[in-house]
Amino acid sequence: MEITTLGECCFPSPKKNFVHDQDRMPELVVFRQGVAPETGNLFELAGPRERLFFEPGRTRAGIVTCGGLCPGLNNVIRSLFLELHYGYGVPEVIGFRGGYQGLDPRCGQEPWILTQQMVDKIHKEGGTILGTSRGPVDMDIAVENLIRRKVDILFCIGGDGTQRGAYALYETAKKHGYPLSVVGVPKTIDNDVQYVMRTFGYLTALDESRRVIDAAHTEAHSRLNGISLVKLMGRNAGFIAAGATIASQDVNFTLVPELPFQLEGPGGFLAALKKRILARSHAVIVVAEGAGQDLIPGESGVKDASGHTRLKEIGLFLREKMEAFFKAEAIPVTIRYFDPSYQLCSMPANCEDAIMCDQYARQAVHAAMGGKTGLVIGMIHGTFIHVPSGLIVTAKKRLDLDGLIWQAVLAATGQPARFGII
Amino acid sequence: MEITTLGECCFPSPKKNFVHDQDRMPELVVFRQGVAPETGNLFELAGPRERLFFEPGRTRAGIVTCGGLCPGLNNVIRSLFLELHYGYGVPEVIGFRGGYQGLDPRCGQEPWILTQQMVDKIHKEGGTILGTSRGPVDMDIAVENLIRRKVDILFCIGGDGTQRGAYALYETAKKHGYPLSVVGVPKTIDNDVQYVMRTFGYLTALDESRRVIDAAHTEAHSRLNGISLVKLMGRNAGFIAAGATIASQDVNFTLVPELPFQLEGPGGFLAALKKRILARSHAVIVVAEGAGQDLIPGESGVKDASGHTRLKEIGLFLREKMEAFFKAEAIPVTIRYFDPSYQLCSMPANCEDAIMCDQYARQAVHAAMGGKTGLVIGMIHGTFIHVPSGLIVTAKKRLDLDGLIWQAVLAATGQPARFGII
Amino acid sequence: MEITTLGECCFPSPKKNFVHDQDRMPELVVFRQGVAPETGNLFELAGPRERLFFEPGRTRAGIVTCGGLCPGLNNVIRSLFLELHYGYGVPEVIGFRGGYQGLDPRCGQEPWILTQQMVDKIHKEGGTILGTSRGPVDMDIAVENLIRRKVDILFCIGGDGTQRGAYALYETAKKHGYPLSVVGVPKTIDNDVQYVMRTFGYLTALDESRRVIDAAHTEAHSRLNGISLVKLMGRNAGFIAAGATIASQDVNFTLVPELPFQLEGPGGFLAALKKRILARSHAVIVVAEGAGQDLIPGESGVKDASGHTRLKEIGLFLREKMEAFFKAEAIPVTIRYFDPSYQLCSMPANCEDAIMCDQYARQAVHAAMGGKTGLVIGMIHGTFIHVPSGLIVTAKKRLDLDGLIWQAVLAATGQPARFGII
Amino acid sequence: MEITTLGECCFPSPKKNFVHDQDRMPELVVFRQGVAPETGNLFELAGPRERLFFEPGRTRAGIVTCGGLCPGLNNVIRSLFLELHYGYGVPEVIGFRGGYQGLDPRCGQEPWILTQQMVDKIHKEGGTILGTSRGPVDMDIAVENLIRRKVDILFCIGGDGTQRGAYALYETAKKHGYPLSVVGVPKTIDNDVQYVMRTFGYLTALDESRRVIDAAHTEAHSRLNGISLVKLMGRNAGFIAAGATIASQDVNFTLVPELPFQLEGPGGFLAALKKRILARSHAVIVVAEGAGQDLIPGESGVKDASGHTRLKEIGLFLREKMEAFFKAEAIPVTIRYFDPSYQLCSMPANCEDAIMCDQYARQAVHAAMGGKTGLVIGMIHGTFIHVPSGLIVTAKKRLDLDGLIWQAVLAATGQPARFGII
Repeated sequence: MEITTLGECCFPSPKKNFVHDQDRMPELVVFRQGVAPETGNLFELAGPRERLFFEPGRTRAGIVTCGGLCPGLNNVIRSLFLELHYGYGVPEVIGFRGGYQGLDPRCGQEPWILTQQMVDKIHKEGGTILGTSRGPVDMDIAVENLIRRKVDILFCIGGDGTQRGAYALYETAKKHGYPLSVVGVPKTIDNDVQYVMRTFGYLTALDESRRVIDAAHTEAHSRLNGISLVKLMGRNAGFIAAGATIASQDVNFTLVPELPFQLEGPGGFLAALKKRILARSHAVIVVAEGAGQDLIPGESGVKDASGHTRLKEIGLFLREKMEAFFKAEAIPVTIRYFDPSYQLCSMPANCEDAIMCDQYARQAVHAAMGGKTGLVIGMIHGTFIHVPSGLIVTAKKRLDLDGLIWQAVLAATGQPARFGII
Repeated sequence: MEITTLGECCFPSPKKNFVHDQDRMPELVVFRQGVAPETGNLFELAGPRERLFFEPGRTRAGIVTCGGLCPGLNNVIRSLFLELHYGYGVPEVIGFRGGYQGLDPRCGQEPWILTQQMVDKIHKEGGTILGTSRGPVDMDIAVENLIRRKVDILFCIGGDGTQRGAYALYETAKKHGYPLSVVGVPKTIDNDVQYVMRTFGYLTALDESRRVIDAAHTEAHSRLNGISLVKLMGRNAGFIAAGATIASQDVNFTLVPELPFQLEGPGGFLAALKKRILARSHAVIVVAEGAGQDLIPGESGVKDASGHTRLKEIGLFLREKMEAFFKAEAIPVTIRYFDPSYQLCSMPANCEDAIMCDQYARQAVHAAMGGKTGLVIGMIHGTFIHVPSGLIVTAKKRLDLDGLIWQAVLAATGQPARFGII
Repeated sequence: MEITTLGECCFPSPKKNFVHDQDRMPELVVFRQGVAPETGNLFELAGPRERLFFEPGRTRAGIVTCGGLCPGLNNVIRSLFLELHYGYGVPEVIGFRGGYQGLDPRCGQEPWILTQQMVDKIHKEGGTILGTSRGPVDMDIAVENLIRRKVDILFCIGGDGTQRGAYALYETAKKHGYPLSVVGVPKTIDNDVQYVMRTFGYLTALDESRRVIDAAHTEAHSRLNGISLVKLMGRNAGFIAAGATIASQDVNFTLVPELPFQLEGPGGFLAALKKRILARSHAVIVVAEGAGQDLIPGESGVKDASGHTRLKEIGLFLREKMEAFFKAEAIPVTIRYFDPSYQLCSMPANCEDAIMCDQYARQAVHAAMGGKTGLVIGMIHGTFIHVPSGLIVTAKKRLDLDGLIWQAVLAATGQPARFGII
Repeated sequence: MEITTLGECCFPSPKKNFVHDQDRMPELVVFRQGVAPETGNLFELAGPRERLFFEPGRTRAGIVTCGGLCPGLNNVIRSLFLELHYGYGVPEVIGFRGGYQGLDPRCGQEPWILTQQMVDKIHKEGGTILGTSRGPVDMDIAVENLIRRKVDILFCIGGDGTQRGAYALYETAKKHGYPLSVVGVPKTIDNDVQYVMRTFGYLTALDESRRVIDAAHTEAHSRLNGISLVKLMGRNAGFIAAGATIASQDVNFTLVPELPFQLEGPGGFLAALKKRILARSHAVIVVAEGAGQDLIPGESGVKDASGHTRLKEIGLFLREKMEAFFKAEAIPVTIRYFDPSYQLCSMPANCEDAIMCDQYARQAVHAAMGGKTGLVIGMIHGTFIHVPSGLIVTAKKRLDLDGLIWQAVLAATGQPARFGII
């Protein structure tokens, strides 16, 4: 997995404890004795390089945050600035505002020159001081703007749409013959990026989700045949739903995008729920927003501004189906619906996320100063790596239904392995 | 405001620091020098009485929790039990389950005999261990059940529907010639009971509301023209919306049931919102669920199981109106909707609420042991009082638009005193 | 209780909903039927006045925060600024820094001209942006400085030392013939100010104290004969210890300054503790820092910089005594000591405190603009009042051992009414 | 790293997704291209085995928790029970009480037969329902007791003293010819176990530490020359101090056991602190309890009941030294000392810790049912492994001063790499 470098690295680094460019982390590390081991992809290690491509005192860097909010964005901005400024001595760090659209000089929001004072306390707040938006920017205009502003390095914090854009920026700069280092920091509260063990913000989202599940459990438990339905983030992958279920241990059914399910029929979800209600008089259901999309009538594949497929409302659909079902069964139930989505995204980072943000940011700076480009900072086996932008967006990470996490969900909920004959 | 007593009080009390039956708290205490003072209603003070109507060692008490959840219900149950059992030596306290319906022996849920062990830790959890429900019970059947079970005292924890029911139970018992003490503990997260300065659960709801407003503010602030709309509890009164606004100081518009408003027109809400968006590029709006009901098309006055008028969905209505308005104005906005309702209700009580719950409960026990009946524990001027059940339900407490709280809301939001010509 | 006014009030107020200068709140409001009522002191009501002494557009105000930290200080500073600036149109508000010493121009810390931007988010943080200190300032130098800077109004946020200083400032200004309005906002986390039902910060301190007691209870409960000793704030009064005990319900012994106790002897604290340990194998003890001072050997009455008597370390003393006692009794115990003092003081204000801070601040501004001086904002019976500075410092508010709070402590702990023959 | 197995595995497993006994995780996975790779130790993977040594329906298991409290103990107990009971069908799980001493039938605390109801909610509470203690038990008596009670499997949750004891129990059982599976779950809030990337409880301790550092920072910042000193857990390793520093970003000096330091002299800690105070007027210091032990006079190496070396009080020592130093320098400072130790240990587990506890527990059950013995569940490179008990206790994990974490501490604090010539 070779990472592109902008050219020869001629400048000494003010850092120490260097990582060697030939160090590699294999994708696969477990092997079976007596069987020839496979390594899968071999990734460059992240970390400070002994020789730099950019001369720190003459380097200018930019930062842009894109897409939905996620706990820790401000932490990443802050640590990028600090590592650039104090770690390497980069004199000027520019914050582009309002997502990729802020790279267009006509956007109406002048970029900020970041200072120590501006970023000093921002890690204690959710959101992003730079602002964000969905959707693309004209690549040529953006790159021309970067060239005009003499920006050598651009840090793109965002999800896979953002990383695709980052790759396009890098290609466009190459086309212009401009040595632009574009380094991505992966951002998704859903934790569904391949070659990234854990994205920042995910654990904070779990803490907040568990609070809501606690409330949902209390509601369900305080009424005869109380049913609480909690919709959580998770477009393509059920990591938040699964993690919150294991942490809470109060959930009885967890529905995720990875596992299609049937509502009707003797093995379907509604029959299982009925069984639970008759036996225990209450139930807590967690559903990831991307689950059960095939069940909901209506056109599929509609896209939003940033090219995401617009999801159909599984939460409200399920509530309606449950209401109709129990009415038909003449079982009186009280259904409560919890939809805390944006609350999860806007929290300040918890400690573990705060530490990860700091590390992602500093590794991104090391990569950029070493002249690497067209890459995203990844993490496998607990170690930070460089992943080519082109590779990271080829697929999403999803729950392994035979893996540790999903098995723990099944143990925590006691739900059947399948709903229906699917 | 005379409180009915079941008869002569012949038994000595094990307590001390007695309150005298002739002590009175006036409804009005401020006066103007040179003007003859008015006192309004004169209320009996709550507190332990020197002589008891019930002989503690031969008394049996019951507890029932009704209506929606509210932080502190378990605290009240626990302190009722402890004061009865340890404070007075009452041997048996029965917990009826699932609200008033649990008073009907055919309800399918056998009452519990409460013990120290059962209630020991419940104050650390939200909800009610006894369960709850909305809706009435057949009064004669309920009273016959109480008589058969030899229940001398019934504590009814609930809102005004519950207190109306409590009064009916007391009247029905009188009709049966049975000396039943019915004592109400007022419960509404909305804090809208007259002669009750503050209902338990309200402050916990504020803490939780402020967390959501924080998230809403972060969302709005992180996008160009971001608008966050937070719907909070408050059917008839905007105390939660107002209190959360003052505590947060991040809200720009607060809409409450007490203040009708216009959407359209130059002085309407939408025009004021547009002005804010153009000037500051983001806005946070808090709306109480009972606000603006007159604006929403559809039949009014539909009732639910417990006789509450079913509210029309002001939150979703407002969101739709704002979307249409800004689309017509060609101002691109990002609107986020937050509806944390049941999360507020299910929290464990914060410290202040926990302390109040303990006091309400112990005052209720003192009243009952003294043979008082047909009353609710109230609080005015910081002092607990006895309020006749018949009086407390005559009206709701509402925000005084000239008062301290609403003026503080206006100062915090900077919103105009009126939206439109209403 | 007449409040001094600086002179005739000639300017119209931009506010509305005025309070009349002849409105009075009696100290005593409960009366016994058939007995002639007593009112005690009659206090002026706080609130906006129809006529102002200071012309808002030509007024300059100053703020100073003194003594120990307390949750809500920044909220008060912020609301003072906002009410002055936006509520009345006062053009300049000065923040003196580092407590009273900041009134001395030689202190080395230049005062700040406060702006909207400076105070915008400070209510979300603990501490005080102005800084604080203990100890006095030369009154003549301070007043000359205020005169030179044309400060018309000085808001003094602090405890009784501070309010004594505020009174001295007012007297000194009078001596100089300078019409200075000095208005105090009472600040003590201990909640021990007379004519002040509740000081801001107290409830936040309870929330934090309960968290620590939870931890202490877990520690004690997880070991055979585990004893957790928690020292809480409370120099002269046990309000924090008592409130936290009632809210927690996990405390077995609460020791406060108001109730002297004996350690030794059959009725002493140690004998009661031994009984508890033998019966239940664990115990949680809360001690206010000012409790049991007479038990500790050493010189009494040593004063610190601000004139407070330096307390002797009751926590460590008790731990030592318990260790020696159980060693002598050959009962193996594990004692854990918790001293969260400064943690309580540094928290951001919870919702109720945030609301109270806003109200105290705005009432203080109304009083000052009306030309009142030499007063502190108080609160009795749930209503804000004006209390002469000279009166408020005459005594401390203390727990009434026959009152509601202490009785609730006895009920929660089950401890004896007295330890020893005291 | 071969793990001992009690014998042939004859029984089928009710689980699925089996791990193969020949699967290995290498200790070292990163390699340099062109250099022959080294693997270090090769560890068995944890996970369900296809064949079991114990027949589930005839198996009896025991659990014991030892040493200090740590967030997540109850989660581990609960998931052990659930996996044994529901995952495998083990009919009886015994909870030994009060640590290893509870294995001695003369201890006075009868073991509990655990039930679903007993463990249902315990994961929401800190501490351990089984109780704990430090110190050893007579091995022969313990093993005879286990044999008499027909306990086939013993889960030992504790630190390295506990794991040494676990190994001794296994050896003693072998000596008695009794096929006892002893499986350890590593427990230390300090996160200092080798071959364990992260121990449960550590992240919760960081969350709590950061809260205290926030308070400490507020205190220091609110006074001229305010110095806050926070002592955190960390006997042999500074992981908590370091992690909390990175998460908080408000610490200026972090002192850990791994890095000896000098107080005096031009390059010493006090000189650096003076420089900071003169430049910035406040400072926050975090010190791990095991730091700087060589600086404190007094006898070294005194042991407590569980064989831990008793630490000398670095916090109080430092405070004293700082006070004397600044007094001698005639620089007035205000020093606040924060010692939240036991608060960290008693918290309920945060989400990440809760998830890890569940996984450690289930992996431990899989190992035991497969007849493995004399091992501890470890985790490297994000994967659970089996570590021989004899290996895990040979050394402690310590901060790598050239590694990612410590470099992040240096970046966050800006402190020099060394204090003094050490």
